[in-house]
Amino acid sequence: MSEAVIHVRLDGKSASGPAAGDRSYDVVCGWGILDRVGPAVRAAGGRRAVLICDAAVAATHGARVAQSLAGAGIEALRLELASGETTKSIHEATRLWEAMAAEAVDRETHVIAVGGGVTGDLAGFVAATFARGLPCWQVPTTLVAQVDSAIGGKTGVNLAAGKNLVGAFWQPRGVFADIETLTTLPAREYLSGLAEVVKYGMIFDPGFFTWLEETRMPLRSRQPAALAHAVERSAAFKAAVVAEDERETSGARAALNYGHTFAHAYEAAAGYGRLLHGEAVAIGMARAARLANLLGRIPAELVDRQDGLLTGLGLPVAPDHAGTIPPETLLAIMRRDKKAVGGRLRFVLPDRLGHVQLVGDVPEDAVRQSLAP
Amino acid sequence: MSEAVIHVRLDGKSASGPAAGDRSYDVVCGWGILDRVGPAVRAAGGRRAVLICDAAVAATHGARVAQSLAGAGIEALRLELASGETTKSIHEATRLWEAMAAEAVDRETHVIAVGGGVTGDLAGFVAATFARGLPCWQVPTTLVAQVDSAIGGKTGVNLAAGKNLVGAFWQPRGVFADIETLTTLPAREYLSGLAEVVKYGMIFDPGFFTWLEETRMPLRSRQPAALAHAVERSAAFKAAVVAEDERETSGARAALNYGHTFAHAYEAAAGYGRLLHGEAVAIGMARAARLANLLGRIPAELVDRQDGLLTGLGLPVAPDHAGTIPPETLLAIMRRDKKAVGGRLRFVLPDRLGHVQLVGDVPEDAVRQSLAP
Repeated sequence: MSEAVIHVRLDGKSASGPAAGDRSYDVVCGWGILDRVGPAVRAAGGRRAVLICDAAVAATHGARVAQSLAGAGIEALRLELASGETTKSIHEATRLWEAMAAEAVDRETHVIAVGGGVTGDLAGFVAATFARGLPCWQVPTTLVAQVDSAIGGKTGVNLAAGKNLVGAFWQPRGVFADIETLTTLPAREYLSGLAEVVKYGMIFDPGFFTWLEETRMPLRSRQPAALAHAVERSAAFKAAVVAEDERETSGARAALNYGHTFAHAYEAAAGYGRLLHGEAVAIGMARAARLANLLGRIPAELVDRQDGLLTGLGLPVAPDHAGTIPPETLLAIMRRDKKAVGGRLRFVLPDRLGHVQLVGDVPEDAVRQSLAP
Repeated sequence: MSEAVIHVRLDGKSASGPAAGDRSYDVVCGWGILDRVGPAVRAAGGRRAVLICDAAVAATHGARVAQSLAGAGIEALRLELASGETTKSIHEATRLWEAMAAEAVDRETHVIAVGGGVTGDLAGFVAATFARGLPCWQVPTTLVAQVDSAIGGKTGVNLAAGKNLVGAFWQPRGVFADIETLTTLPAREYLSGLAEVVKYGMIFDPGFFTWLEETRMPLRSRQPAALAHAVERSAAFKAAVVAEDERETSGARAALNYGHTFAHAYEAAAGYGRLLHGEAVAIGMARAARLANLLGRIPAELVDRQDGLLTGLGLPVAPDHAGTIPPETLLAIMRRDKKAVGGRLRFVLPDRLGHVQLVGDVPEDAVRQSLAP
């Protein structure tokens, strides 16, 4: 099985953003690599650890990482998180902070997050803020986390008013994406991660988009070589963008938000946890493409081609309950989006396959039309 | 009246620490300078602001800053905080995050903290974490905040288990230390700030220590020129240390924690809010000097000289209720201190007037002796 090490270059020499010293790190993508975590933490000087694990994988992947830490002579406090987006809360962050304080966790302790995006975002935020910052390692065990959320240092929790409204940029010391863990994911969870993979094709690379179209059946059946290629390519896209625009200031990183302004609104309106993030992103990309077409930026054929790939990968392009969320509710949420400036709507929209732009001052009427069931 | 502008140099060229881009900023120390805040925020590109103000000064200093913002054409959301250390909580941070989310605060909004250390630490933490980071300005209106906490980017809140256990390093865009605001501080609040001023003399500068000894009466009566010199010199010491060791990694910044391991334990054991921070620091320095003497590092004369200056400035050198806090309670809290490593006690201790060192593995028996009433 192929293995790839993708370097996230954050050495302070990039042209833009408040880059900070050399905080570069590696994303290791491979098969059965959970036992590498302990030696890597040890090599980085870790002697104690807090292992924060999604409860759904605590007995499997979590136990393997714990064993690897023990084998490396690292004492670990184990904390478990309930699965699901509602866990990404101030309440849960407080529970983790207090558990760590009770165990006298100090600044030399490393935090290790094992699970999906929820685990990585919450554990990363807790690592960023406990004692003003502990070293953090990401061990993503879902597709969406391996190709997106575990790379790049975005951490945070949700407020009732919106997703990720509280958080920090906090780069991990390293990422271990074990592709074998994807083979035991529940089908819905796995498929939802493909939405972010399709996104990379849409925003960056027509060739990769075409490969996805040609490989949809091997991807749906989780054929290992197809999985590995999809994860490695996606992680490399993400790493390149993060290196260019660590804190979403230059605009390069904004491309990754393609579909996400819509997606966050659907997630919030549906109630966190009803839609998986990747499902919301698939719907959001379908809406964004429709909006781009309404604004005369792309032909209807590209809208259909994207819909076709998403559908072919088992992803939704409209919410089940589309008729029940009033467009005004979604619009109100979008006006509060972190990317909005002074309440004016901004969207990342394609102008051709493989390329997107940040578009400001989009007329609300066009957005309303793109939200119609 | 003299005015000083002290530059905090954080341009990424320092030898140590994860310095990050050019995040240098100015600390303006002057008389009646609150009306400069609005123009400064405007010049930095601010068009909207969140003004977070200690309720005790909302109608006075807060109103002047609000007027200055309005005069500069900046729309401001005003939020007030109850005075006192118990306000530095996750609960209050959550209230601020939610109020900001309800008003659709976006990434272009600047946060302005007006008040003492509690306001600056909490507002700074909320600024660091809302939408993964908003620009923040510190307008300290207490002595302890002007000479210490408003400079250097340490932000945070307390947990029941200890002070500042949750927080972030988040440098302000600028600091406005209006010395006139010190003239209306309650006496106890004002005097407590002198503890941090004495600290700079003890850890860095025998000449400044001697000046404090000679100037104790003008300082107690808040004679403006004495006040201005004390604030400017202290802010300059703090700025120099922060520039050298932004994230407390090289050891230089650790000097500032002289007296603070004891102080944090006394504050926690007494119940937050009973002792003012500066009072706890005065007691902590008295204990640290005693410990240094017990370890043979300084003569008893220096312990007495420091006690004399602190007492002469109206500061305590032992807690009123000294007999009621068992040394074991204080020791248990100190083992959880962020500066402790693996539960081993470390203290910043003087070896002569004007110089301190970080001392590891201090015998607990010596610490117990230094805690005796």
